[in-house]
Amino acid sequence: MLSPPIRILGIDPGLRNTGWGVIESQGSRLSFVACGRVKSDAALDMGHRLRQLHEGLMGVIADYEPDEAAVEETFVNRDPQSTLKLGQARGVALMAPALAGLVIGEYAANLVKKTVVGAGHAEKAQVQMMVRVLLPASQASSADAADALAVAICHAQHRGARALRKAIG
Amino acid sequence: MLSPPIRILGIDPGLRNTGWGVIESQGSRLSFVACGRVKSDAALDMGHRLRQLHEGLMGVIADYEPDEAAVEETFVNRDPQSTLKLGQARGVALMAPALAGLVIGEYAANLVKKTVVGAGHAEKAQVQMMVRVLLPASQASSADAADALAVAICHAQHRGARALRKAIG
Repeated sequence: MLSPPIRILGIDPGLRNTGWGVIESQGSRLSFVACGRVKSDAALDMGHRLRQLHEGLMGVIADYEPDEAAVEETFVNRDPQSTLKLGQARGVALMAPALAGLVIGEYAANLVKKTVVGAGHAEKAQVQMMVRVLLPASQASSADAADALAVAICHAQHRGARALRKAIG
Repeated sequence: MLSPPIRILGIDPGLRNTGWGVIESQGSRLSFVACGRVKSDAALDMGHRLRQLHEGLMGVIADYEPDEAAVEETFVNRDPQSTLKLGQARGVALMAPALAGLVIGEYAANLVKKTVVGAGHAEKAQVQMMVRVLLPASQASSADAADALAVAICHAQHRGARALRKAIG
């Protein structure tokens, strides 16, 4: 007997554009629900840009009612100012599902690539292509949204193992 | 005639402890209102730690009803992982006053020190001592809270100039 479907929100954080994607996972079956991106207006100050991202993500959570969330662990070998800005957007992206009481998985970019493409150093284009193969209904997604769907797929594959590790503790 | 008092919330962001301090500024007069810190529980996942900081800061804003907020610009010459973590806490610290609709000033650490102590490379202990001199009622504050009061004092001194620059455009 199949366990009930789990609805997963994947988030690819970024200050200008934060990608999001919602999928359903039931047993080994994945299906596409929705995807898109929330933007911040570069003309505003940082606090108000972060507020836009927050409100956009809270809106997505209210609209699609995910059960769990997954966020990509950020790439940090860029300059400190960029890392700090990305960290700010990422803080907001992690907090929105926490405010909604969701379990949140964090996944390294290499694990996302390895899970979706089969290789930890896959190109971005390969990830996007495999997302379209795995979720045919998601054709229209932007690159940010495809990355968010990839982290949701990664969570769908690894959440069972995570839950088990937690139970064994 | 004095303009009405402005209530300023200063925030010193940190993942483990975020310091906050509220002062009132009327003409050149400053007075202490309250200070403290909000903490996050290191045993929780990042999203839920950030939620604790967010809820703590939203509580402070609800309790003390500041008119404006000021956040210290973060020191970024540490390793990328620390910078990213600090960025996440800082994102939450900047977003809380934006959600409350407050004007938010950001000030470089050197400007805060220069304004409060008179020297951009002052030691932390000197900043804390001058905060106690300028706001005698704040004696009991922790180091984080003293830093938050210092950024609030900095905003009190510079907000007039900022408003003028904005008006001139």
